[in-house]
Amino acid sequence: MASPLSCSASDLIPLDQTNATSWRVHLRRLKQSPANSPAAICAIDNTYLLFSAYLVFAMQLGRHALCRLRRAKNTMNIMLTSVIGLAGGLFYYLLAAPLLLSFQRLHRTSPSFDYPYFLYQWTFAIAAAGITSGSIAERTQFVAYLIYSSFLTGLVYPIVSHWFWSSDGWASPARAENLLFGSGVIDFAGSGVVHMVGGIAGLWGALIEGPRIGRFENSGKPVTLRGHSATLVVLGTFLLWFGWYGFNPGSFAIINKSYGSSPGSSFYGQWSAVGRTAVTTTLAGCTAALTTLFGKRLIDGYWNVTDVCNGLLGGFAAITGGCSVVEPWAAVICGFVAAWVLMGFNKLADKLRYDDPLEAAQLHGGCGAWGIIFTGLFADKTYVSEIFGGDSNRPYGLLMGGGWRLLAAHVVQIVVITGWVSVTMGTLFFVLHKLELLRIPSEDEIAGMDPTSHGGLAYMYTEEEIKNGIMVREMGRENENVQLGVL
Amino acid sequence: MASPLSCSASDLIPLDQTNATSWRVHLRRLKQSPANSPAAICAIDNTYLLFSAYLVFAMQLGRHALCRLRRAKNTMNIMLTSVIGLAGGLFYYLLAAPLLLSFQRLHRTSPSFDYPYFLYQWTFAIAAAGITSGSIAERTQFVAYLIYSSFLTGLVYPIVSHWFWSSDGWASPARAENLLFGSGVIDFAGSGVVHMVGGIAGLWGALIEGPRIGRFENSGKPVTLRGHSATLVVLGTFLLWFGWYGFNPGSFAIINKSYGSSPGSSFYGQWSAVGRTAVTTTLAGCTAALTTLFGKRLIDGYWNVTDVCNGLLGGFAAITGGCSVVEPWAAVICGFVAAWVLMGFNKLADKLRYDDPLEAAQLHGGCGAWGIIFTGLFADKTYVSEIFGGDSNRPYGLLMGGGWRLLAAHVVQIVVITGWVSVTMGTLFFVLHKLELLRIPSEDEIAGMDPTSHGGLAYMYTEEEIKNGIMVREMGRENENVQLGVL
Amino acid sequence: MASPLSCSASDLIPLDQTNATSWRVHLRRLKQSPANSPAAICAIDNTYLLFSAYLVFAMQLGRHALCRLRRAKNTMNIMLTSVIGLAGGLFYYLLAAPLLLSFQRLHRTSPSFDYPYFLYQWTFAIAAAGITSGSIAERTQFVAYLIYSSFLTGLVYPIVSHWFWSSDGWASPARAENLLFGSGVIDFAGSGVVHMVGGIAGLWGALIEGPRIGRFENSGKPVTLRGHSATLVVLGTFLLWFGWYGFNPGSFAIINKSYGSSPGSSFYGQWSAVGRTAVTTTLAGCTAALTTLFGKRLIDGYWNVTDVCNGLLGGFAAITGGCSVVEPWAAVICGFVAAWVLMGFNKLADKLRYDDPLEAAQLHGGCGAWGIIFTGLFADKTYVSEIFGGDSNRPYGLLMGGGWRLLAAHVVQIVVITGWVSVTMGTLFFVLHKLELLRIPSEDEIAGMDPTSHGGLAYMYTEEEIKNGIMVREMGRENENVQLGVL
Repeated sequence: MASPLSCSASDLIPLDQTNATSWRVHLRRLKQSPANSPAAICAIDNTYLLFSAYLVFAMQLGRHALCRLRRAKNTMNIMLTSVIGLAGGLFYYLLAAPLLLSFQRLHRTSPSFDYPYFLYQWTFAIAAAGITSGSIAERTQFVAYLIYSSFLTGLVYPIVSHWFWSSDGWASPARAENLLFGSGVIDFAGSGVVHMVGGIAGLWGALIEGPRIGRFENSGKPVTLRGHSATLVVLGTFLLWFGWYGFNPGSFAIINKSYGSSPGSSFYGQWSAVGRTAVTTTLAGCTAALTTLFGKRLIDGYWNVTDVCNGLLGGFAAITGGCSVVEPWAAVICGFVAAWVLMGFNKLADKLRYDDPLEAAQLHGGCGAWGIIFTGLFADKTYVSEIFGGDSNRPYGLLMGGGWRLLAAHVVQIVVITGWVSVTMGTLFFVLHKLELLRIPSEDEIAGMDPTSHGGLAYMYTEEEIKNGIMVREMGRENENVQLGVL
Repeated sequence: MASPLSCSASDLIPLDQTNATSWRVHLRRLKQSPANSPAAICAIDNTYLLFSAYLVFAMQLGRHALCRLRRAKNTMNIMLTSVIGLAGGLFYYLLAAPLLLSFQRLHRTSPSFDYPYFLYQWTFAIAAAGITSGSIAERTQFVAYLIYSSFLTGLVYPIVSHWFWSSDGWASPARAENLLFGSGVIDFAGSGVVHMVGGIAGLWGALIEGPRIGRFENSGKPVTLRGHSATLVVLGTFLLWFGWYGFNPGSFAIINKSYGSSPGSSFYGQWSAVGRTAVTTTLAGCTAALTTLFGKRLIDGYWNVTDVCNGLLGGFAAITGGCSVVEPWAAVICGFVAAWVLMGFNKLADKLRYDDPLEAAQLHGGCGAWGIIFTGLFADKTYVSEIFGGDSNRPYGLLMGGGWRLLAAHVVQIVVITGWVSVTMGTLFFVLHKLELLRIPSEDEIAGMDPTSHGGLAYMYTEEEIKNGIMVREMGRENENVQLGVL
Repeated sequence: MASPLSCSASDLIPLDQTNATSWRVHLRRLKQSPANSPAAICAIDNTYLLFSAYLVFAMQLGRHALCRLRRAKNTMNIMLTSVIGLAGGLFYYLLAAPLLLSFQRLHRTSPSFDYPYFLYQWTFAIAAAGITSGSIAERTQFVAYLIYSSFLTGLVYPIVSHWFWSSDGWASPARAENLLFGSGVIDFAGSGVVHMVGGIAGLWGALIEGPRIGRFENSGKPVTLRGHSATLVVLGTFLLWFGWYGFNPGSFAIINKSYGSSPGSSFYGQWSAVGRTAVTTTLAGCTAALTTLFGKRLIDGYWNVTDVCNGLLGGFAAITGGCSVVEPWAAVICGFVAAWVLMGFNKLADKLRYDDPLEAAQLHGGCGAWGIIFTGLFADKTYVSEIFGGDSNRPYGLLMGGGWRLLAAHVVQIVVITGWVSVTMGTLFFVLHKLELLRIPSEDEIAGMDPTSHGGLAYMYTEEEIKNGIMVREMGRENENVQLGVL
């Protein structure tokens, strides 16, 4: 609060255009005072980037609202969702930042590792860890959360992001030379780098833990374990939607970049591409949600709130990779297919008795992979060259006439991410499993399912009772009661 | 994530002011590099507009929290609230955007139809549709929501917004010539264009559907059908308040516009008007809430949370039209009167057995109409000329000494909007009613009212049971249970 | 919506660098059109400040979610939380703004009292009042809220903020001469000015009211009166976190200020300091939360959601004062100690039978005071001089080699704030107590504790019944039911 705004006339006296000295003075003032242009550029871009980072942070709120589950140890889980964020903040600073710092030294035009950019990258790292937490919800030990999320945000994710997003990454589209297939991978905001990484990690976690108790009948028939409040599901989905405007358009990082005059005559630059990215994101999500709504109704004869919300999020996960380089009409196609991809993977998961409480592997892994393919098919020539530069023979989307090379690079991305995350996170979850650090005891899991044993004054204890362990037992109940709305 | 910020000194080497060539180089760099001023202007304004659009989007979250109702088919309704947004996004893109595009071609100085502006307009269109959904909540069929919201966002609303906001609209204050009453209508952020449109549409919907079962005793005595959680009502109201800072100040669209030096000496421009708009908005809402609190207590002897929250929103709906052109003290008057307008219309609605679950017609229609009159009374000469330009004889508020012409134009706006929306949306709702597509069957409506029939494990079904329709029945209960906190 | 963006080429025709006249024209256009640089500077800074203000406003949502308490008269209290904000808006405008206006006249380079800055200051004033409301929750009369919050936001807080933040305040670090201990107090975003003021006020309110009924056994053993929904506690904490990015980094008010080229070579300015402030804030909160988690587990053998969330907020309250002038590693220390300060004060509060439902005095008062000391210990020389200027002998943190003078000034701040708030707010609460306007009747407090008497259709009443007072009684129940999820 120390510095009031100084838009005072004394700093900004009118310029006498007829006087040459006046120009000099004006230019000098422009440079010396806060009004000099380079400072303004930095101020604009960092304002844009910082508020985008805040929006991405708001996705944690949405994820939290979605994670309000009704079963055993869920209070613990709720807390853990936030602890992941917390741990993420600290571990990312301690582990990943020095790593990135040295990476950055290699590839950035400027040697400075600056804070707004660090903050933005931190929100991405905790997003990846948050995705995985959905897959293993409701049956995972506290210590496993802490270990996997530190490992994911501190090592697995930063290395993937380096491969595809650093200008010296082997698959980066911004390399000076030796681009993969002459193209590099265009994964703009991370259908692969964030969503597939989080989803594949979740897949291994959920596979190794196995389904929640009661999720499948002995015959293999899936049982829907509800417990989400519809209100919170929609609220959480909307919060994620809100935050996605920081995630996708925010990935430009700089908004103040001119592309030169467009053919029409209008002055044109990155601000327009940022807006287009927000529009493609919106359209992909909307289309996926409506497709799920009508698709479910046509095929299964019913639908529910969670299906449509997950469809929406699947559309977002898919468009994330290509959001900046496709036309709005292509985003509609992206969302339409994403809805069917998610419905298909969910059918498959039921067949294989795979239990993923938030459908995270299907949604972020499956739709993320579709998004990578989609970008290889529909990336627009003009947009690719505006954003990534390069020569006029640069590959773009196959269906747009840009040849096979971009698509080939994208297939490589899917294979590499699947392999890397499987080896690292799969191994980690397996080790945790063998050390019996992964899954909570089955009596704890079952205890949380009983909505009948409770008392009206269950929340009043003395400190003594709490220490004697009553609270831990009751906390599971408390939360369940609130969520079930059960007496 | 591809483009790290480049605030590097190599781009921004110090300027040698003593050297003329250095100036040339500096200016050339300003133009060629991202640091050129026109790009900076576009970047600032689009940053401002985009984040304003995101804030307006956040109003959907608030609307959703308010719509958490406890009665039959409410899960369906909750979902529909979001589907409206979704459908809105797609239909607005498919229907309204091409329409607007051609409108824009006619009146914009630049031929470009740019994305951030489209996104901002989309959030306004879904806001109008969202208002209407409140009036017809808890008793309306799914298909009716889809049809009315597509019709409203795709046709009815865009045409009204063209009339009053396009520079070639017949009632626009920005026309080059032939202004209505020499003035045009000043409906800055849409007390009429958004709030009255949504409110009048809701009025016809609620009138044609009739009240919810049990809302009035046979004697005509109104029964308060509660079920909102007070916590969610306040949360939803605060979220709408948060979003209103995108709605009202954001309607400037550009923040980087100088008005020249003010008499004092301070450099002065649209950024200050934007801030003033945020302040008038805040003051109108605060005053309306406090007026409702004390007014209800004085007259009825009691008040409740929902009354005060609706009072707040009524103040916001009223100030929306004149927020940018009135003094803060006038905003206090606006909010004070808005509270009484809302209380009066609510009394009238009870008398006429009109049932509007969220008081949407009274609040957005009634307070919106008051806001239009208010602007005609209190618009300030200086602010009108700064924002809308024009000659020095331009009319302004009657009570500020600006004559009758602005007020006359505003009366015309009320009449025209009421007529247009009644003809279009009234007809639509009547046709839906005749086709029996409007109201849900009364047994479904009653079923949701029974909070006693339920089971502790009601949320576990096999897929089979769901297909057999059990889920649809149970879903109504599930939601109600959560909201009542009762099984 | 009236002004579409005009990034048109007609305004921005390419500049012919070879032609001297063209430069003149270009410079003239820069000045006359919206593209002139001074306007751009104001636009950037005000955009930054306005959206920061909106974020700080969002903290009200978080506070509201935290205040969802289960006991008597809580619906009333919930409403009051918002009314405080409302009243704050109006009273701040009526009382504090004229006061500040005259203050501002004295010390600002520009005489203009501008709106975005007013809005930002308003959000700070209601934040202080909101802190106090947590201490006296669940047992305080409506009228007492109105009186104390008006007095606090209208008088007590503005005077403190003047002392430490106005450039002519006696303890301001921005004074031209006669700095306190040659240094002034560096309380960047208000560990003292906001958090200690709110916390000390709450301390006196809670002390004079005494503990809630049932909070301590006759033996003095504390009883945990739970009732928060864990989900809402985490949601509210995350919303406060989200808003803190407006509170701390936003306190720079201007982002467009160059510090000159850094030694490295990168162009460097306030945008980087803003980002660093967001990072220190994040790290302090994360560290405090993790410290609480493990600390509680080690010492007490258990922990719960509320503890960890309060630890997080304690870390934020502590870093608020020094957020802009310390290194990230120091923020980790700040958060670590803040967690122990909070745990210690909570132990002490239990010993002294002090009941503060949201731990507001301990958290905002205690951790706020630690934050003031922390800044005196760890303020970095470079950052202090970049932000506050002054000569090269300016004192900075003791442990950074900057001598005792900054720390001495900070000790004075703690003493002065404690004294001033105790004298003013302590007296006010005592007078309210003597006039029997402070605490609700004990039967009302007890009534809300009974979770057994209720009926399934309890929320349907006629207007008649409401007038007869049934509603007030039932409303307490309704809310409690939702919160407990228990009947």
